[in-house]
Amino acid sequence: MTRQELIQQIREKKTFLCVGLDTDINKIPQHLKDADDPIFTFNKAIIDATAPYCVAFKPNLAFYECYGVEGWIAFEKTIKYLQENYPHHLIIADAKRGDIGNTSKMYARCFFEQLNIDALTVAPYMGEDSVTPFLGYEGKWVVLLALTSNKGSQDFQFTQDADGMPLFEKVLRKSQEWATDEQMMYVVGATQGRMFEDIRKIAPTSFLLVPGIGAQGGSLEEVCKYGMTDDCGLIVNSSRAIIYADSSERFAEVAAEKAKEVQMQMEALLRPL
Amino acid sequence: MTRQELIQQIREKKTFLCVGLDTDINKIPQHLKDADDPIFTFNKAIIDATAPYCVAFKPNLAFYECYGVEGWIAFEKTIKYLQENYPHHLIIADAKRGDIGNTSKMYARCFFEQLNIDALTVAPYMGEDSVTPFLGYEGKWVVLLALTSNKGSQDFQFTQDADGMPLFEKVLRKSQEWATDEQMMYVVGATQGRMFEDIRKIAPTSFLLVPGIGAQGGSLEEVCKYGMTDDCGLIVNSSRAIIYADSSERFAEVAAEKAKEVQMQMEALLRPL
Repeated sequence: MTRQELIQQIREKKTFLCVGLDTDINKIPQHLKDADDPIFTFNKAIIDATAPYCVAFKPNLAFYECYGVEGWIAFEKTIKYLQENYPHHLIIADAKRGDIGNTSKMYARCFFEQLNIDALTVAPYMGEDSVTPFLGYEGKWVVLLALTSNKGSQDFQFTQDADGMPLFEKVLRKSQEWATDEQMMYVVGATQGRMFEDIRKIAPTSFLLVPGIGAQGGSLEEVCKYGMTDDCGLIVNSSRAIIYADSSERFAEVAAEKAKEVQMQMEALLRPL
Repeated sequence: MTRQELIQQIREKKTFLCVGLDTDINKIPQHLKDADDPIFTFNKAIIDATAPYCVAFKPNLAFYECYGVEGWIAFEKTIKYLQENYPHHLIIADAKRGDIGNTSKMYARCFFEQLNIDALTVAPYMGEDSVTPFLGYEGKWVVLLALTSNKGSQDFQFTQDADGMPLFEKVLRKSQEWATDEQMMYVVGATQGRMFEDIRKIAPTSFLLVPGIGAQGGSLEEVCKYGMTDDCGLIVNSSRAIIYADSSERFAEVAAEKAKEVQMQMEALLRPL
């Protein structure tokens, strides 16, 4: 999906919500656990229920890999279901991959060629040649970790160099030499709301994928106030607060209600064209 | 595998070689491509041929994931084959994972519980809570990226803070507050040979997993001169230079010869007890 297509989807659907498919077998409704493929069955219901209120879906690979081959089957089925039924939703594989050049190339083949996924989260620690193999696929995106939403983000991401530039800022600056805002987005956690002001000085037009709203406590209003651009420039993710909002047989219905609530907040916050 | 068991294996077998199972279908011998499961068939032959000369095997997940479900099946079969036939070899899953706490926990379950693998490479960018969920499994290891062997390591890993401390050094120092040298090793690339002198000042007793010998050009002598401890403290990886040394029907035999050459160099470099 190109940048223009993404912006158009946001405008048409009046939402920039991403639903995180962090599907944990221990948290899905009891009555689904006897299904043939409980993870896919849960995902399918959540996708159908929330698709009208979001522009993206983001399965986190950890939640699939932890079931080995069965998990990968559920992951691939989920991707295929999305591609066949919701071709205008952005699919982000949250995998946080990154390795030396020839190995990153293998990951790129996996996610962009074999699975034909739109976007992949990538870790920056290994530098340029660990990231660039993911670029150059038409309409595909690298979503580079810049400032994450977890407590551990304090450990290294804020380390300042001799000129006072924190590491996450160096990642933002340097990586923009590798890719345009049509190829690369950044992960910036919502729990650091005011930071968006600084980030927009460094990456004024890039799309930002924002986790940390909902269960992790970030404020949507603050993120929009400091981070939104004329093209929106934001994809805000919510996982647990939507997909596990209810554990009864009404789980999908309640997930839809929660997603719709967020969509309505987003509609009010989106700037007019 | 505990630290003591690892040291004992190194002493007994007079080697600290790790064979990297970066198995690329495009690089394996032509005659194997028609096998039922060419990747596993290749791995099995390489493992049987090189096991006498190494203490560890390190499959890189990228090379398996890129074939989706089939790749995961080959990966799991390889792990199972190793566990059943070579229980005294350390198995390192080179996955470079790392995510927010509850997600890292899922990866830990995948690699340490479900697959019962001995060690996992982990990326440090997201800090403490992305790493600690992998700790606390008896006899299991986190292998944290510190200084990698690729060109891109220059981009962020050498960034100095206000006190002149480069990022990789901060990663080494900080992470030793989270784990002992019985729980954590570090990836330190061989292409930065002289750097081992500095690294041993910061992590005097930790095991270091050293890629970059062979195809990437690092020097084994230099690594040992500056990086070896009384307990050896090194696991040196070689992938391409061993597993793709020959592409005829003699590939496994030639791989064994190459591994034996390295083992003999290592035997000469190992300090007497």
